[in-house]
Amino acid sequence: MTDARKFGMAAAVVAAVGFAGTQQARADEGMWLPSQLPAIAEKLRAAGYQGDPAALADLTRPPMNAVVSLGGCTASFVSPKGLVVTNHHCAMGAIQLNSTSQDNLIENGFIAADMAAERSAGPAARVLVTVAFDKVTDRILADARGKTGRAYYDAVDAAEKALVAECEADAGYRCSVADMDYGTDFYLVKQLELKDIRLVYAPPEAIGNYGDEIDNFMWPRHSGDFAFYRAYVGPDGKPAPFAEDNVPYTPPAWLTVSTDPVGEGDFAMLAGYPGRTFRHRTAMEFAEQVQDTLPSRVDIYGALVDTIEKAAAGDAEAQVLYAAQLASLENGLKRAQGELDGLRRSDAVATRAADEAAMLAWFGKQAGAEAALADIEAAKQLIAAAHATSDRDTLFDLMLSQTQLLGSAYRLQRLALERGKPDAQRESGYQQRDEARIEAALKQVQRRYDAKVEKAILAELLRRYRALPAGQRIAELDAVFGADATAASAALDRIYAATTLGDADVRLGLLAADPATVQSSDDALMQVAAKLLPAVLRDEDVEKQRAGDLLRLRPSYMRGWAGYGAANGKPLYPDANSTLRVSYGKVSSLDPRDGVHYTPLTTVKGIVEKHTGVVPFDAPDPLLAAIAKGDFGTTADPVLETQTVDFMTNLDTTGGNSGSPVLDAKGRLIGLNFDSNWEAVSASWMYDPRYKRAIHVDIRYLRWLLAKVYPAPHLLEEMNLPAE
Amino acid sequence: MTDARKFGMAAAVVAAVGFAGTQQARADEGMWLPSQLPAIAEKLRAAGYQGDPAALADLTRPPMNAVVSLGGCTASFVSPKGLVVTNHHCAMGAIQLNSTSQDNLIENGFIAADMAAERSAGPAARVLVTVAFDKVTDRILADARGKTGRAYYDAVDAAEKALVAECEADAGYRCSVADMDYGTDFYLVKQLELKDIRLVYAPPEAIGNYGDEIDNFMWPRHSGDFAFYRAYVGPDGKPAPFAEDNVPYTPPAWLTVSTDPVGEGDFAMLAGYPGRTFRHRTAMEFAEQVQDTLPSRVDIYGALVDTIEKAAAGDAEAQVLYAAQLASLENGLKRAQGELDGLRRSDAVATRAADEAAMLAWFGKQAGAEAALADIEAAKQLIAAAHATSDRDTLFDLMLSQTQLLGSAYRLQRLALERGKPDAQRESGYQQRDEARIEAALKQVQRRYDAKVEKAILAELLRRYRALPAGQRIAELDAVFGADATAASAALDRIYAATTLGDADVRLGLLAADPATVQSSDDALMQVAAKLLPAVLRDEDVEKQRAGDLLRLRPSYMRGWAGYGAANGKPLYPDANSTLRVSYGKVSSLDPRDGVHYTPLTTVKGIVEKHTGVVPFDAPDPLLAAIAKGDFGTTADPVLETQTVDFMTNLDTTGGNSGSPVLDAKGRLIGLNFDSNWEAVSASWMYDPRYKRAIHVDIRYLRWLLAKVYPAPHLLEEMNLPAE
Repeated sequence: MTDARKFGMAAAVVAAVGFAGTQQARADEGMWLPSQLPAIAEKLRAAGYQGDPAALADLTRPPMNAVVSLGGCTASFVSPKGLVVTNHHCAMGAIQLNSTSQDNLIENGFIAADMAAERSAGPAARVLVTVAFDKVTDRILADARGKTGRAYYDAVDAAEKALVAECEADAGYRCSVADMDYGTDFYLVKQLELKDIRLVYAPPEAIGNYGDEIDNFMWPRHSGDFAFYRAYVGPDGKPAPFAEDNVPYTPPAWLTVSTDPVGEGDFAMLAGYPGRTFRHRTAMEFAEQVQDTLPSRVDIYGALVDTIEKAAAGDAEAQVLYAAQLASLENGLKRAQGELDGLRRSDAVATRAADEAAMLAWFGKQAGAEAALADIEAAKQLIAAAHATSDRDTLFDLMLSQTQLLGSAYRLQRLALERGKPDAQRESGYQQRDEARIEAALKQVQRRYDAKVEKAILAELLRRYRALPAGQRIAELDAVFGADATAASAALDRIYAATTLGDADVRLGLLAADPATVQSSDDALMQVAAKLLPAVLRDEDVEKQRAGDLLRLRPSYMRGWAGYGAANGKPLYPDANSTLRVSYGKVSSLDPRDGVHYTPLTTVKGIVEKHTGVVPFDAPDPLLAAIAKGDFGTTADPVLETQTVDFMTNLDTTGGNSGSPVLDAKGRLIGLNFDSNWEAVSASWMYDPRYKRAIHVDIRYLRWLLAKVYPAPHLLEEMNLPAE
Repeated sequence: MTDARKFGMAAAVVAAVGFAGTQQARADEGMWLPSQLPAIAEKLRAAGYQGDPAALADLTRPPMNAVVSLGGCTASFVSPKGLVVTNHHCAMGAIQLNSTSQDNLIENGFIAADMAAERSAGPAARVLVTVAFDKVTDRILADARGKTGRAYYDAVDAAEKALVAECEADAGYRCSVADMDYGTDFYLVKQLELKDIRLVYAPPEAIGNYGDEIDNFMWPRHSGDFAFYRAYVGPDGKPAPFAEDNVPYTPPAWLTVSTDPVGEGDFAMLAGYPGRTFRHRTAMEFAEQVQDTLPSRVDIYGALVDTIEKAAAGDAEAQVLYAAQLASLENGLKRAQGELDGLRRSDAVATRAADEAAMLAWFGKQAGAEAALADIEAAKQLIAAAHATSDRDTLFDLMLSQTQLLGSAYRLQRLALERGKPDAQRESGYQQRDEARIEAALKQVQRRYDAKVEKAILAELLRRYRALPAGQRIAELDAVFGADATAASAALDRIYAATTLGDADVRLGLLAADPATVQSSDDALMQVAAKLLPAVLRDEDVEKQRAGDLLRLRPSYMRGWAGYGAANGKPLYPDANSTLRVSYGKVSSLDPRDGVHYTPLTTVKGIVEKHTGVVPFDAPDPLLAAIAKGDFGTTADPVLETQTVDFMTNLDTTGGNSGSPVLDAKGRLIGLNFDSNWEAVSASWMYDPRYKRAIHVDIRYLRWLLAKVYPAPHLLEEMNLPAE
């Protein structure tokens, strides 16, 4: 931990070197529910918004219902004929599906000459249009109130399932319940589920994904990360699967594409479906994350990387088998380190502690807050209790998730157990709809498994497990692997010598077998999994108990923040939960580190500078030629006097915001969100205005490509845009 | 060559994307001889210089004679008691010499409490004070005039040697002849050679070399790359080796250290001893460099890296033996690629061709220029002829320089040959004073040699040699290694099986043996070397013939440039040749690539940001603590409101300028030059004002460290600086 401690010291020094505190400048922080916008109308106008904030308040009415979900990505309608624009990386599945070696849409891009030429994005593609967003808190909590722990959890779960089933009785709709502010409120989200989605336009991957992994999370950026879909419905206007005689869907609203320039300081606004943030977690959880969870993740992932590399050294085949797992661990390691560095740089622990202390001091003075404060105290004790076993829980999880054969044995035993229940009561991930995925995973074990490497992984995880305090023991684990390194090594050798799970037929046979056969299998690893299963179930039950109580208790904490915020003129936005949110701010430069300043707009000059001719910097010849020609027409930037490519704002985003439309002060489309900067990887916990930026395709680059490089004049016309 | 061609295309596109041409803004280009400064006095004043340019014209008078050479580095006097300031990396030899494991000056730094505590920098350390700089062209060329080729070369060489011997008859001085403008003029440089140099102050390496190789050539930079020496003389005031009773030298001049802030756009000036540039080479040589020499170096170095890695794969011992050679090849590869990228980015070939064409057009119209134009044409033919065999010459050189055993055999045979001549007539590198170095090289072969790797290197170089056009054949090489791969492989196996040169005693025995014994050695590799020697000698003779003719012809080319420059109000500075030069310009930011802007000053914030606790980013605790304390006193920047560390200017520098004093408009010391930026690695050929920057320690950082972090109040007092 010496390095980590030094890191900590450096971060503290950075914090002390006279920087502006992060609080004072958090003006642009916030992933607002549309319904909150009227309440912050004054701030929105002061920031430069020229429309009526009240008009944005209902996400089921224009213009907000032009913003749709693709499930994981955001998109928006840009024409009355169902034309949808999103990111190239969000449409990648559809592009791949339609690519062959003869007709490689990934490499060459795709332009449908007319509607007849548009290609199905496949049966799984969806465009989801939100038609209702209703608060259902009373109904969800009716049965839970008065209960605690697991009973509270189960009551909420049952109420949600009932409501969703009721809502989905209306054919053509997908419904879900969103938990807002950690159990404070619940919303029923009803979405029209469009199922005939077609690919209309995609640039070559060398444009849509220029820079790929090397530029990922980086600025300056030069990606044309956009693509067009079109949504179709049956001749009756209702959602329908792909069919020749389907007709373009007429959306309730569509965005106007801007033809004005964009420059530093300009107002910008973004709507989309951010996935998950942790901004309103307790100060205790911030401290745990920075002081323990992230450093320990860095430590364990690093150790697993070393272990795999060492075990596979000199064995070229094993190196290939573990390449994907290694890449995934290294990526996780890099992200954890980035998040850790960011939270330390932002002095997040101290900042959150000071903020929370101020909130609680205020809350303590409010009449009738005693019960809420007691709830908060109780919640903190639950959080601390959960954290007390987190090292052990993490190691146990990794034993099942970072192994192929032991993981398969566990999944087979678990599925056998769950198959004994009605489908609705099965554990999530083991329901009937999950079985195809489980089968696929069992099949591909062959491509990712080597016995000596898996044993080395388990030996390392068990070594770490045994080093934990005695109170953390898992009896089942000790029974299987013994109490010391010698015993563990002997057990691993014995078990892996006596298992036939390395044979795909054996695994798939067990998948097809009835539960009793699976449970009584005499395969050594299947028996190990059967012995460990009770420990997993016990942990899960403890976790659901806690989850139920936290769902009951955290609303008091959120009530404190809401009251404190209201008293200080700072309304509270809920943490992201995949519901539609709006953030606003401005086109912004970034000073990522001492001596370096990033300008907020990039230009085609950068495409050429990065071009090496080798993937991912292999700009297509037509693009290079068009840049050299310098014919940028109406899309050229009047100040920079060249074609812009991407731009950066301080908008508040997270994963799920991919494809989100970026709007100007008049609500017109000026860009598509597609990434964040590396310095903002910690923003899921804390928005630091010095470092949080979002990265967007400049809509002028899209327009230029459609006008001059890979022409699609009919689409420009459909969007009412100039031909060049 | 496909990649290189694509690179070329990208560079051409960059050049076409509407950038400002490089010519128009070359205002700050120039490594001026002090004697030229009166001629550009108006420009110097317009740039902001407030002193009298005429006062800078004589480099043997104050203040220019405060600037001294350390032989390879530049330094300057900063007190009347012989105190000298230079770079930490220029004083590294002295710091190492005085370091022990108990008293580690590298790690801990060094502060001499008083003069008695100052430590000898060792017998080889020198401070050279220029006392005379006289044009001796007539004397040098007197005997050469009328001659051509080798005779011209030998006449110049003999005249130089005679002049130097005459000058050095004056005890205590070192003399040399500098060739200015490629044979146009010659100067006799007479320098007082101070030999008792002592280490006075050095920061810890973690400050002096913060960032080391990772930050090398990079901006933003956070190095405190400075150290202090003091020069001593005998009690009689004359140069003397180290002795207890020596006294501090009283320099003829010393610089005043500025106490004013420095900011973007401020005038800056630098004096130093830049090593070598190629700015005034012909357009043909620019084209050769960019289209052939550099790409081919990238290609060959890359192939040698691959060859060594492949040959040593799976042999850990061989990998260790070749680690240094690999690192050196990779470094050479990186530099060549950087220079190539830079020259392409600057469109150097086309720019130089256009400039030269304009100059020649002008020159052609001048009366009496016919002879000069004929000289230029003749010079170009010689250059083309040299280039015609350059691929072969390079490969032949690499066979002797990239091998340990064959290289040793060659050096032993060459030395045996040279030992038969009077020492003064021996080839440079094989004189008596070189023998210790040769012995050391022969001894360390053991640590860098593995037979299979050396054979693989030779096989690869021979394969490339055989692929050259037939006219490039070297008969001796063909005789030894045969005409095809099979023969070469068999020859290599046979030769390396039959040599005993892998034995250090055998090599050192041959070094000690008389020439006849060496020449008749029956060792297989010694015989190979004896057979190849005539080819080397033949090549050298051809090269000296050409060198003599170019020395005779190039002055006509330079005369064209001088006249053309004068006619256009653009005086010509000579290419760098290790003589004292002055450049002027300003504190400058840099836009290294699209979207990125480097500010010209860095601050202590960046030290903390980079700090990881691991070398080379292991800022010492006292430094981190002082930064956290934020007590920057009079050294804080009034605008940035914190302590600056390094700054960047557009001053014209190259290798040898390390340690050069950077002066402000009033001639006061504001910084020490210590590096260039990566984007300027091609500046030895072309100064591109968009990318050429020099990197300096801010003298305020030095002052702050001496005042508050590693205190040396007596040195501040000696320099008339405030105590804090």
